Amino acid sequence: MTKKPLILVTNDDGINAPGIRTLIDVMLTIGNVVVVAPDSPQSGMGHAITLDSTLYVERLIVNGKKTNEYSCSGTPADCVKLGIKEILDRRPDICVSGINHGSNSSINVIYSGTMSAALEAGIEGIPSIGFSLLDYSWNANFEACKKYVKLITENVLKHGLTKGVVLNVNIPNVDQKEIKGVKICRQAKANWEEKFDKRISPQGRDYYWLSGKFVNLDNGEDTDEWALTNNYVSVVPIQFDLTAHHSIQNLNTWDLND
Amino acid sequence: MTKKPLILVTNDDGINAPGIRTLIDVMLTIGNVVVVAPDSPQSGMGHAITLDSTLYVERLIVNGKKTNEYSCSGTPADCVKLGIKEILDRRPDICVSGINHGSNSSINVIYSGTMSAALEAGIEGIPSIGFSLLDYSWNANFEACKKYVKLITENVLKHGLTKGVVLNVNIPNVDQKEIKGVKICRQAKANWEEKFDKRISPQGRDYYWLSGKFVNLDNGEDTDEWALTNNYVSVVPIQFDLTAHHSIQNLNTWDLND
Repeated sequence: MTKKPLILVTNDDGINAPGIRTLIDVMLTIGNVVVVAPDSPQSGMGHAITLDSTLYVERLIVNGKKTNEYSCSGTPADCVKLGIKEILDRRPDICVSGINHGSNSSINVIYSGTMSAALEAGIEGIPSIGFSLLDYSWNANFEACKKYVKLITENVLKHGLTKGVVLNVNIPNVDQKEIKGVKICRQAKANWEEKFDKRISPQGRDYYWLSGKFVNLDNGEDTDEWALTNNYVSVVPIQFDLTAHHSIQNLNTWDLND
Repeated sequence: MTKKPLILVTNDDGINAPGIRTLIDVMLTIGNVVVVAPDSPQSGMGHAITLDSTLYVERLIVNGKKTNEYSCSGTPADCVKLGIKEILDRRPDICVSGINHGSNSSINVIYSGTMSAALEAGIEGIPSIGFSLLDYSWNANFEACKKYVKLITENVLKHGLTKGVVLNVNIPNVDQKEIKGVKICRQAKANWEEKFDKRISPQGRDYYWLSGKFVNLDNGEDTDEWALTNNYVSVVPIQFDLTAHHSIQNLNTWDLND
């Protein structure tokens, strides 16, 4: 590529999160970077968008100089829409989201603001990747991610992605020398066994905290969970056509018409 | 079925919306109904869940008598989790969500709180349907929906649904006599062309409203958009395994390992 690629960077942990700072550092070694990210953490936002409220965008100024970073009052999906339609001069060559503090493997993809931002760019026809590190802490060590974030991004810039497909990349939380490589995977059939912690407020009102444990009953060796457990970086191609094509024939046998 | 089925009802427009009142009326003709729905409108919430905040649940009392209706401070997905894990005595036989005020056809499924509630029940292994009427107004006329909501719900109770599959049902906004029947469809490859309406606040600060128009460039006659345009009720089986299986082989040809 002779011209430097234009890279839109976003996340769901907020523009000041260490994960997005690492992602920006890596992207600056690849191309021209514009950041549009939420002004506060948005984890668990799924594919929420702001319909009934206004959106604020602030360009960040550092030492009196305008940067290419914008913080937005909206959700991750809002940030991508605003970035593409309002902030960037031209369509980005790629959109990268993350690096999320915590896993977005298997069913977590459904709840993930990081991945909803990546999907939103995919819906706009822009090659797009969401990156996550399997460490929920704010002070997670993103050092081992850098090599793989760069490698996968460069491959997407080189090869492109099939229309309608976005990459969900998860990185095990181990030292770089322990990472065995990259595996292309399917989403494991795992889920959360939720529990609600019921408490009573000082005002005497019942309230709940959501908690739970992650349970993987999928023994396949082609899944993201298997790859991550075995110290591989998992890459799952995901799509926003949710049609369960395999069910259509069966449903057509139902008695739904007069 | 000799025993009456237990039906969990939810939505994203809030427990007082006319759409859910219609859905409850129809479900009461089929089985025992428990309602757990947001206490305020949650449209465009996607698959958001409440992780960093508390959840309140209020059982509705009418004329001094406890009802089987609960309003919840959380998102549609929260309502389903709470309903299944905390409120119901046993697992429901089916979960129905809606009737949404407005379309959840084609790409709208991604942003839909109605459908995220249905998907959440599906993730829990419960047969589940989301219903939407193609009329965004609060005073929409849900009369024509009743027949099809009942017909499709009874079919799901009779046949069950393949594990991992949930139904996305959209109903055209016409008189019942104009509805030609039910079509099993795939999700149309349509999307929104967004625009942001930029304004200045009384305090002199720029802000944006999201708006846009829906564009369908998918001419297939097997899509939900085609069905709805031609006055059919559309039924799209959808899944929460987002893996783009058709892309795995191609990605395996990339140079991602040393």
